[in-house]
Amino acid sequence: MPLGFRGEGITYTARFCGVETPFYFNIKETIKTYIVHGDFDFVVSPLMFSGHSPSKDRDPEVHNLDRRLYPYAETDINVAWAQWAKAGIVVAKICPWLDLDSEDENVRTDSEAILKQQIEWASYLSLKACLLPTPKGNSCANYARCVNQILKGPKNNMQLLLRIPIGMSDNDYSPRSNASVDSWQTWNSFRVLCDHHNLLTIALDINMNIRSCYQESPASRELTKTLVRGACRCCNIRYRCSKRHPLRPYLDQVSNVYKQRNPLSERECRELDIRDFLQLPLRPFRNFSSALSYEGQATDSLKYTEYERAICKALLDRVPNEKASFIVTVLVVVGAGRGSLVFASLKAAEITGRKLKVYAVEKNPQTVIALDEVIKANNWVDIVFIVTSDVRYWNAPERADILVSDLLGSFGDNELSPESLDGAQRFLEKDGISIPSSYTSFLQPLTASKSYQIAKARKYILHSESACVVKLYNVARLAPSQQVFTFTHPKWFDKESNERYKKLQFEIPKDTGSAMVHGFAGYFNMTLYKDVCLATEPSTKKPDLFSWFPMFFPLRMPIRVDRGSILEVHFWRCVDSRKVGFLFLFLHFMLLIWIALCNLKQVWYEWCVTSPSSSPIHNCNGRSCWMDL
Amino acid sequence: MPLGFRGEGITYTARFCGVETPFYFNIKETIKTYIVHGDFDFVVSPLMFSGHSPSKDRDPEVHNLDRRLYPYAETDINVAWAQWAKAGIVVAKICPWLDLDSEDENVRTDSEAILKQQIEWASYLSLKACLLPTPKGNSCANYARCVNQILKGPKNNMQLLLRIPIGMSDNDYSPRSNASVDSWQTWNSFRVLCDHHNLLTIALDINMNIRSCYQESPASRELTKTLVRGACRCCNIRYRCSKRHPLRPYLDQVSNVYKQRNPLSERECRELDIRDFLQLPLRPFRNFSSALSYEGQATDSLKYTEYERAICKALLDRVPNEKASFIVTVLVVVGAGRGSLVFASLKAAEITGRKLKVYAVEKNPQTVIALDEVIKANNWVDIVFIVTSDVRYWNAPERADILVSDLLGSFGDNELSPESLDGAQRFLEKDGISIPSSYTSFLQPLTASKSYQIAKARKYILHSESACVVKLYNVARLAPSQQVFTFTHPKWFDKESNERYKKLQFEIPKDTGSAMVHGFAGYFNMTLYKDVCLATEPSTKKPDLFSWFPMFFPLRMPIRVDRGSILEVHFWRCVDSRKVGFLFLFLHFMLLIWIALCNLKQVWYEWCVTSPSSSPIHNCNGRSCWMDL
Repeated sequence: MPLGFRGEGITYTARFCGVETPFYFNIKETIKTYIVHGDFDFVVSPLMFSGHSPSKDRDPEVHNLDRRLYPYAETDINVAWAQWAKAGIVVAKICPWLDLDSEDENVRTDSEAILKQQIEWASYLSLKACLLPTPKGNSCANYARCVNQILKGPKNNMQLLLRIPIGMSDNDYSPRSNASVDSWQTWNSFRVLCDHHNLLTIALDINMNIRSCYQESPASRELTKTLVRGACRCCNIRYRCSKRHPLRPYLDQVSNVYKQRNPLSERECRELDIRDFLQLPLRPFRNFSSALSYEGQATDSLKYTEYERAICKALLDRVPNEKASFIVTVLVVVGAGRGSLVFASLKAAEITGRKLKVYAVEKNPQTVIALDEVIKANNWVDIVFIVTSDVRYWNAPERADILVSDLLGSFGDNELSPESLDGAQRFLEKDGISIPSSYTSFLQPLTASKSYQIAKARKYILHSESACVVKLYNVARLAPSQQVFTFTHPKWFDKESNERYKKLQFEIPKDTGSAMVHGFAGYFNMTLYKDVCLATEPSTKKPDLFSWFPMFFPLRMPIRVDRGSILEVHFWRCVDSRKVGFLFLFLHFMLLIWIALCNLKQVWYEWCVTSPSSSPIHNCNGRSCWMDL
Repeated sequence: MPLGFRGEGITYTARFCGVETPFYFNIKETIKTYIVHGDFDFVVSPLMFSGHSPSKDRDPEVHNLDRRLYPYAETDINVAWAQWAKAGIVVAKICPWLDLDSEDENVRTDSEAILKQQIEWASYLSLKACLLPTPKGNSCANYARCVNQILKGPKNNMQLLLRIPIGMSDNDYSPRSNASVDSWQTWNSFRVLCDHHNLLTIALDINMNIRSCYQESPASRELTKTLVRGACRCCNIRYRCSKRHPLRPYLDQVSNVYKQRNPLSERECRELDIRDFLQLPLRPFRNFSSALSYEGQATDSLKYTEYERAICKALLDRVPNEKASFIVTVLVVVGAGRGSLVFASLKAAEITGRKLKVYAVEKNPQTVIALDEVIKANNWVDIVFIVTSDVRYWNAPERADILVSDLLGSFGDNELSPESLDGAQRFLEKDGISIPSSYTSFLQPLTASKSYQIAKARKYILHSESACVVKLYNVARLAPSQQVFTFTHPKWFDKESNERYKKLQFEIPKDTGSAMVHGFAGYFNMTLYKDVCLATEPSTKKPDLFSWFPMFFPLRMPIRVDRGSILEVHFWRCVDSRKVGFLFLFLHFMLLIWIALCNLKQVWYEWCVTSPSSSPIHNCNGRSCWMDL
């Protein structure tokens, strides 16, 4: 039963608890003891008798010795392997004494042979995962090479968990050298050598108090975070096996920890499946948004309450009380969508007692159908006017006092808000107000293995350098976020460029360890009006705001940073016209279709790292991701 | 006229000398002065008037100022640009004062605009190259971003030469900070940011004595090497222009340096075109070699003289003088090809007065036709027997006293010599001799930009991790080579594995600078018999031996090493059977072809770096390059 089980049909983050058992010839009995009577979810068990070391016994004269040992495991005939494998009940534990980087060539080649033999056996039994022994000492290149060959072998779909201890070592792994081994370095080196393969994961081995380990080795912070999230598979409760499952109290204790945690909110449940997954951002001038995405946004009540507050303040500033009865404020909603901002404006007018005339400008003709209906139903036809047009080309009948828009993407300006509002500024009064009045994007370096692996695996993310929208979850934030680009509306100078360049220096804290930077999280902070703000930047974000997930700017190759070092990053917002070539499509019967698009104006970001080491400049000329104007 | 010109039709490494001139409105006159009267090959000239700095003159109130300056250059109507551009006579010199990473945003954006404007003008004039100004200070990210956009822009085929001074600075470039700027660091950072683009090259600016510069900054050794090889384009002789070409004596002086050098040998001339180019190695069990490659090898007289010496010594050791008249030595040539080793054996028998019986085993039926002819012409039919068979499966009629083979590839064992000779060992007498009796491969870390760029550009070199044969030329060897794998024949133990693993640690010398490791050169040293050796390893190679070019094992991403650091490398020789999947080909009319190859036995190498930083393991499971058994 998963830890903290809350009943069938209830969504929660399922965590499982297993037991590490010694080798028994009768695995059926082991499973009965632990799973059936003990209520554990799985057992981590050696599949072969490991007391035997071929290198010790081998006759040096007999060089053609077949190194396979009989009998080395329980037969697969009498046991219901297929069933157990499917349920993930058995995780194979590979011999812990294996040393694939031993200086002794016999030990090394024996270890290679045994590793291969045991993995093949586990694979034959269709097991879902194997627990690999901890690398011995500082060197793990040959071990990684063997594991890498298995991972990339044909048909492999078994997960390999590399056992990495936090803190002190155990009798299972006796490092060759007395020099201190940094767990993170070992794990990092191993995964880099295996080219960040997605079936290679870490199994944290906690044999000590987590708190003291935290103090002892700040480098393992990333590890412990991973642990607390989901790596409970390796929660080893060592105890002798018995039929009266004496481990049950321990299991209950762990289970209680999870039961006491708050259940996931409805929103968190919905977001479970998209955690760390990459979604391409909206391209407002290229595709129209779907009804679903409007629906998602409309339910964010905090966002519209803040808009309403901002509009109230703007109306009060614009029209003094004594003139409230006869001055009509002209308000233009840019990108009205299904009307949330129109309703917020009307409500603000009602609260403040100001007279309002609203132009709801929206270029997506699908969405205004719903808006039109609501307006008619509420008898607002005299004060709300729907305009189906691109705001940049709309010929406004009168000047606006207030512009209200909700065009920000996850990285603030990435959905072309600056360019849209530049277009709208034409018909804004000289002393008119734009809500939002300004916004600033933020950037933060991340360790994000999971998102990085997804980016690497997806072929359509060209060059693994497309910025994506991600519900960041399995990440470590390596330094506080910093400001990147700021845009203010209305612009003081009409022709001011929307191009930007910013150099950022992140200091990796001295009390943290080394880490891999897989990319950067992008957020924003927007000032709607005066002190009314909305932010996705973690330090200022209000927990109820959920309209935006962070942006993720990946690095093609992760960069390693050490504690106290400076991570220097450059970000550009480029605006240019791009000459798009000819596209020819030959179809059947010599039907020839060609499309020629020339001088398409586009906006894109480029980024690179220059310290501690230089990366190539990403997304040159917007080759992987861009926005069309 | 190229430097050291030796007459039409004579091959030599052409080097050219140009003059850097100031800006004149009349470029025609400039060319007349320098090229026609002065005999220089090209001029490096600013194309625009550079005394004017827009940022200083710009009216801060006028923000929509068009920053293009008129007139800024000579018109292209009166000058024969097309003709000059084609001949590469004019290299555009971009304004030296540009500072694209200035803290002053005006200077930065002006510099960006002017760079773009000047490149566009040079491009419009179809010039082949532009000389870019030296980056100012330590930071060059924004400069690199702009250059990268130009390099990767549509249709760009202009070479961009980044001017990098060795040693002291000049009035052309005034670094912003007083901190010392390492030229190599600047260049390296710039090229990494531009992702090693092949149109971005370095233009070394030597404003001082090379010798003192060598002493002053060991880091520039790589640079000076590049310089001496071909970067003479940038040999700047600064002097005021005059119609009586007063620079002519200087040109003659430089020219004399080249005239005094030895002309290229016939071999060097033939190899000019393949310098640094990647060739896939032979796969002896997969493809038969062509007549051309046999022809190439047969002309290597040193190689066969050494074989002859070795066979002589073996014959003398095997048969004492008193028994020479009646003992017949059985000699098997493994891979006889067109007979060079057969002739060497017969000659050795003649010299030593020993009786010989030769089996010439060769599996390529094409080559033995020539051999057969020679044998008949020389009336050797009683002593030389041609066997058309794979030596591994040949059923020998008698045991051999001596095995002679020439199966080594550029990396020694990479053309499956160990596996072939294991197969031949079946019919070798217990005290028989194998020539070669042993061979050892060697490895050396390299800076090899050119080969790396070629590997990156070629799509068929999967994952840029295929080992290739390369006539290494534009390389820097970063440390002495070290031994890798050794094979000895005959083997003592029949079943001894041909798998190998070696960990190497190269110490980057303290008196060198930082460098990029693009990959490793592979060589070998083989002992034919006793003290008779053949080697391609640079420290022991005899200059006359030319049968093998070095092997090149690339790294997918170059790794930076600093002076005095340890470069730790792991190399594996793997032998395994690989399950090859099914290949389906659908053709017209539902014709279905499928090929299923299963359990093909293969040999391949894997390699990785673990220090100073870890690389992924290259060529996992032989996915990019392998040899079929």
